[in-house]
Amino acid sequence: MTAPTILLTGFEPFAGDALNPSAAIALALDGTQMGAYRVQARILPCAFGAALHVLQQALDSTAPALVICLGQAGGRSEISVERVAINVDDARIPDNAGAQPVDEPVLASGPAAYFSSLPIKAVVAGLRDAGLPASVSQTAGTFVCNHVFYGLMHACAGRPGVQAGFIHVPWLPEQVVHRPGQPSMALALQVQAIQRALAICLEFRGVADLRQTQGRLD
Amino acid sequence: MTAPTILLTGFEPFAGDALNPSAAIALALDGTQMGAYRVQARILPCAFGAALHVLQQALDSTAPALVICLGQAGGRSEISVERVAINVDDARIPDNAGAQPVDEPVLASGPAAYFSSLPIKAVVAGLRDAGLPASVSQTAGTFVCNHVFYGLMHACAGRPGVQAGFIHVPWLPEQVVHRPGQPSMALALQVQAIQRALAICLEFRGVADLRQTQGRLD
Amino acid sequence: MTAPTILLTGFEPFAGDALNPSAAIALALDGTQMGAYRVQARILPCAFGAALHVLQQALDSTAPALVICLGQAGGRSEISVERVAINVDDARIPDNAGAQPVDEPVLASGPAAYFSSLPIKAVVAGLRDAGLPASVSQTAGTFVCNHVFYGLMHACAGRPGVQAGFIHVPWLPEQVVHRPGQPSMALALQVQAIQRALAICLEFRGVADLRQTQGRLD
Amino acid sequence: MTAPTILLTGFEPFAGDALNPSAAIALALDGTQMGAYRVQARILPCAFGAALHVLQQALDSTAPALVICLGQAGGRSEISVERVAINVDDARIPDNAGAQPVDEPVLASGPAAYFSSLPIKAVVAGLRDAGLPASVSQTAGTFVCNHVFYGLMHACAGRPGVQAGFIHVPWLPEQVVHRPGQPSMALALQVQAIQRALAICLEFRGVADLRQTQGRLD
Repeated sequence: MTAPTILLTGFEPFAGDALNPSAAIALALDGTQMGAYRVQARILPCAFGAALHVLQQALDSTAPALVICLGQAGGRSEISVERVAINVDDARIPDNAGAQPVDEPVLASGPAAYFSSLPIKAVVAGLRDAGLPASVSQTAGTFVCNHVFYGLMHACAGRPGVQAGFIHVPWLPEQVVHRPGQPSMALALQVQAIQRALAICLEFRGVADLRQTQGRLD
Repeated sequence: MTAPTILLTGFEPFAGDALNPSAAIALALDGTQMGAYRVQARILPCAFGAALHVLQQALDSTAPALVICLGQAGGRSEISVERVAINVDDARIPDNAGAQPVDEPVLASGPAAYFSSLPIKAVVAGLRDAGLPASVSQTAGTFVCNHVFYGLMHACAGRPGVQAGFIHVPWLPEQVVHRPGQPSMALALQVQAIQRALAICLEFRGVADLRQTQGRLD
Repeated sequence: MTAPTILLTGFEPFAGDALNPSAAIALALDGTQMGAYRVQARILPCAFGAALHVLQQALDSTAPALVICLGQAGGRSEISVERVAINVDDARIPDNAGAQPVDEPVLASGPAAYFSSLPIKAVVAGLRDAGLPASVSQTAGTFVCNHVFYGLMHACAGRPGVQAGFIHVPWLPEQVVHRPGQPSMALALQVQAIQRALAICLEFRGVADLRQTQGRLD
Repeated sequence: MTAPTILLTGFEPFAGDALNPSAAIALALDGTQMGAYRVQARILPCAFGAALHVLQQALDSTAPALVICLGQAGGRSEISVERVAINVDDARIPDNAGAQPVDEPVLASGPAAYFSSLPIKAVVAGLRDAGLPASVSQTAGTFVCNHVFYGLMHACAGRPGVQAGFIHVPWLPEQVVHRPGQPSMALALQVQAIQRALAICLEFRGVADLRQTQGRLD
């Protein structure tokens, strides 16, 4: 009998970047054991539709107990634990396959939104306790990240007991050397933060999330 | 027979401020005629529950064809046309009645989110054409603004033909003189922007919104 | 006998913009009378060297009692009263004549810096009292604005009794409609702010500046 | 005969923080050997006057060939290589000894400013090449950091051949966990960046700085 699985996904680079921290984190944690669970990583294409196809295959083949999809949020300075995925694709730039949907639903018959089933407040509190900058975010944008987050939550709506959600991570330092003034976070810290986030999620399996306000004004 | 109504709401001041631009705009436009329509303004208390109670009374008594609720978004530099309201109250600070709900639903039995029924892309395009800074926003936060936006869309879900949505406006210049470095927008421009937004909404009654990408990266 | 003069300069547009608020303000106030003083406006080319040549001619022909040079600081949200000009030209982009000096002195034999002789704290305090966002700035950059500021102060070093300095102003609203998220300030407010700044300078002729801390952290 | 010395200073914590990255970096590099040179660290009090007294003693006792003073610049996301120190103390908050000078000169008889004698462009270029975010900064503020920078350059004006300057560093991650949205940089990266900056300075002893534009707009 195999160990229960944590599925951790990252994205391939996009928008001209040579790197994507989300993929680097997923690969860094691939195969690690967390208590009884084993992390399995997958890299998703940064393309509407195709990303969800790869995600669905991974969900089917690994039957995970916990899924966290990671994505890069350039310009943010913290680990961003996303609260909600919305049913809209609205691409500011073309995806890696050249598609640029504008104001189309992710799923024509789907609900307006899905909430993360991760303990988002506990994750943020735990990361901050460990000295790792983190916040809850109210928007995963309207590009491929939100698309995957929405598709993930839709797929998991029929899988009771599966914890699922999305976390945005900052640019790496080497990605901002020619974007003066932009924030970044070292890869070692990002990996440490995501590993801790996975552990906190496991601790909160079957337990209600913390109720604490953590917010920013906007 | 009376003129059809545009309902325009603002909020009373909160968080220690003496002013709230959303109220100033609503009052500035109260009673103005826009084609066949007359603007009726209401000022909502900045309090969970009570704000929706006042809004519901206004909806019942004015039976509007178009409703825009306005709120202040300190720190934003543009007119923010909100896309989506989410079913959560998560207050970073107490409201004006002292309540501070954390991660509670606006409506226990409601859907996860409602989309604005305003032509949000047309409003942003029209404001920019007029030299007025504006963007679509993917989050109205989780304080009383989002609460009212959600409650508004829920109430209008049963009123076909009613256009409804939420617009966030920046601080006024006099509100930032002791918040060095923060952006603001002159009241005259804010009033002009909201008046134009109302006009654009009326032009797009029964017409599909523009399909154009306008976004920012985050 | 002619009225004593206030010289107020703005810059022509640069960096692809069709407008420059500094020129619009200078022209709006050209010819206005402030007590015994008359405002004379000049528009400077946005070019190293040439700008100082035009400024020098204006100083010689108007023999002003007060000189304020204005420039555009895209990305700032407030009226920025500059404290100090430094002896360096370091252009991130070419000027309007195609020159792009890197780390060259404005004046080979000049001192490292000149301080403004305007009552910078009184100006900021007075603007804030009038509800107009303003701050003291410690850097006028290293482009043509700082170049003109340095050249102005050098020229006035030999003119006792002449008040001189530099004020940066934000983008106009119409300049940011395609720069989503960037701050701006309405022209009417900018004109009002600069007119008030001139009046405050006149009030403080021969009087020590206010001593009050007003700063931001950075 | 002893090894020639690199003097590297940091500051004690201030403004209620328990940490100051500048001190952590200086201590981390204390005693390290860089080619023929040995790093000697000193921690300065965050107090006007006293900081310069300790610095002067360190200069006298170590007779360094290279001096870099480090300071914390909360809110900046990069290593900030300062270009210029200005002759003004203007404290937004009291220093650690309770003093809060407003618009007083650092040195009554001193010049308006001193430029860094470090190869600031080479340092920024070298850090960026190594994937470490860095920029030249035109202002070290008007608090104790600028005070020390000015005092350092004044002291070194009479020491030909001594390279001297100031570098601001970001908050550490653990300092921003309760400052949501603020940027930070991991200590390991900060240490690596400063060590590399020291090495670049040594490489450029007696050599002209790179001439390259690197700037930001503001």
